[in-house]
Amino acid sequence: MQKYLSDKNETNLRLPGPVPVPFDILNEQTKPLINHRGNEFSYLLKNCTDKLKQIFATDNDLYITTSSGTGVMEASISNFLSEGDEIIVASVGWFGDRFTEIAQAYNVKVINLSFSHGSNINCIDLEECIKKNPKAKAVYVTHNETSTGVQNNLSDISKIVTKYSLLFVVDGISSVASVPCETDKLKIDVLISASQKGWVTPPGLAFISVSKKAWNYHKVSSLPKYYFDISQYKNYFKKGQPPFTPAIGVMYSLDKALDLLIEETMPKVYERHKKVAYKIRTKLIEIGFELFPDDENHASDTLTSVKIPKETSTKQIIEKLENKYNVIISAGQGNLSDKILRIGHLGLVSDAEIDWLIESLIKSMEKENE
Amino acid sequence: MQKYLSDKNETNLRLPGPVPVPFDILNEQTKPLINHRGNEFSYLLKNCTDKLKQIFATDNDLYITTSSGTGVMEASISNFLSEGDEIIVASVGWFGDRFTEIAQAYNVKVINLSFSHGSNINCIDLEECIKKNPKAKAVYVTHNETSTGVQNNLSDISKIVTKYSLLFVVDGISSVASVPCETDKLKIDVLISASQKGWVTPPGLAFISVSKKAWNYHKVSSLPKYYFDISQYKNYFKKGQPPFTPAIGVMYSLDKALDLLIEETMPKVYERHKKVAYKIRTKLIEIGFELFPDDENHASDTLTSVKIPKETSTKQIIEKLENKYNVIISAGQGNLSDKILRIGHLGLVSDAEIDWLIESLIKSMEKENE
Repeated sequence: MQKYLSDKNETNLRLPGPVPVPFDILNEQTKPLINHRGNEFSYLLKNCTDKLKQIFATDNDLYITTSSGTGVMEASISNFLSEGDEIIVASVGWFGDRFTEIAQAYNVKVINLSFSHGSNINCIDLEECIKKNPKAKAVYVTHNETSTGVQNNLSDISKIVTKYSLLFVVDGISSVASVPCETDKLKIDVLISASQKGWVTPPGLAFISVSKKAWNYHKVSSLPKYYFDISQYKNYFKKGQPPFTPAIGVMYSLDKALDLLIEETMPKVYERHKKVAYKIRTKLIEIGFELFPDDENHASDTLTSVKIPKETSTKQIIEKLENKYNVIISAGQGNLSDKILRIGHLGLVSDAEIDWLIESLIKSMEKENE
Repeated sequence: MQKYLSDKNETNLRLPGPVPVPFDILNEQTKPLINHRGNEFSYLLKNCTDKLKQIFATDNDLYITTSSGTGVMEASISNFLSEGDEIIVASVGWFGDRFTEIAQAYNVKVINLSFSHGSNINCIDLEECIKKNPKAKAVYVTHNETSTGVQNNLSDISKIVTKYSLLFVVDGISSVASVPCETDKLKIDVLISASQKGWVTPPGLAFISVSKKAWNYHKVSSLPKYYFDISQYKNYFKKGQPPFTPAIGVMYSLDKALDLLIEETMPKVYERHKKVAYKIRTKLIEIGFELFPDDENHASDTLTSVKIPKETSTKQIIEKLENKYNVIISAGQGNLSDKILRIGHLGLVSDAEIDWLIESLIKSMEKENE
């Protein structure tokens, strides 16, 4: 049962993270700091890791880093590859492209399988790409692309990636804990996420799960790494410690948030996100917006993006929403900045907040047209 | 004037970080989360950066990362060097050696100028080493070595490093904000620190300052980097943003803690640390301990390490201190684990806490000898 509710906030923070965090989770951070090499922290680390693994639905190893999600994106490159290795990055937007940027910074050769903004990964194209590039060692995929509001079908993608025995790396930063993403069932070798998303926790921590196959890749990887070297996390975890001083306060919050998610049960958490997403999408269409994803079937359950009418400007609407109605949403990124609005709805979203969002949008658009 | 006092804690946390954080600073983290790409965060980022620069005593650029201190140690290598470059690491302990480990992970050639544990950097040896290795591009130094309780004399070291125009990189993780470390006066090109030390803030954030000369090194550096790439921090800072989602809650605490430090004035903060360190050292000697540093003149003002009498064990004393008296101190690291006790005293330390520490130590040793 969902015992925790979003607080009555003065601001309706509708970003794809940070999400609003209820006070009972935020307040955990006021607990006194402890020795991160002592028994009490050891217990906290073990507890959080076990609960994270439960939600990741995995028996794989899982580590917690003090960083944003990008930190573990980098870890998912630097820990498993060597200079000159080839990988396929199947990208449907800005965050997919980030895998390419990181890989290129590490002199990894990227076969860039990019799909147009608003589309999802076409599995026929993916399989063709894999066949054409037999040297490729891994496929990197974004589960939920918050730059376009598209959710990829991991189940279909998994079948292809595993058929060709490639390492399957998934950015689940804005999906895990909000939409089903079962690591072991989907045979995901490396799955990453970050605290400020569906985990309903403040930003500061990120997570990475590592399969046995991924460990085999790690053994022969020669890319430089230190802070994000998963071997260090593995060795210290055996002692019940983190390799480096962690964001202890955020860990306290995470521990509490994980309890509440597990108490609610994950099927119910996923169902809740599905309902909220459907409601927001439907209302946005009702008031005249057009979805940006080219098919509602692959619209994300954690962020909705809509096209903005030509006569209006994203900047003006976003500013009005913020200044007059205390509603915070985002514009598109890069070349989509003037073209779409992005509305986050992961974590806890009440009906009141949805109404507040929709009504404020209507008023902002009306005023825009005056 | 020092308006903030260490709270009456149930535990006497005497580590070289995390330090106990007063509730009025901890409580800042309960403020609702905000858009890290909005005006409010922009203001917070600018404010914190300005105040950090004031305490770093620098006009150089300064960036805040979401990581532990090791993250910015890695940044201080990956941002300024290329594969095969030579650097001198002048190490007096475990944390100095970490620079070597990171550099070697990046295939940087390290000239390891190691001094015996308990000693500080000998400037004659350092100058000789620089003369013998004319290809070396940089000198890496730990200001305050918490693994041995030794504080290096940066003023003397600076004269030599700058005489030979080498890049001067200083790990000030456990010194800046506790003991004088004036970046510009000491001509430090890259200075790093972390929130959970003298900044009296929870762990989760780290800081790196970058001189013009360091930027010139950065331009030609070809080592791979992404999450810790200072170019990204620079570009986003111009827009008033961080490149990646930061630990916003810890930033709230930092902002408050910086105000309190600046209000107290840094000369008084340094004086306070000096007095506390002197008092603790003196009392430890009085009760029969021998300082581990081979000369009291280079004993650290933020951590005191003492030799443990042969008939006792560090493990037993530390466990008794914790279990019977709620006092948390550390053993030595690596091969010093059985040989020394390490007592942190950076941040806020009251007289009551010093007495509590010393009395508990006396009782633990007595019982140890029973």
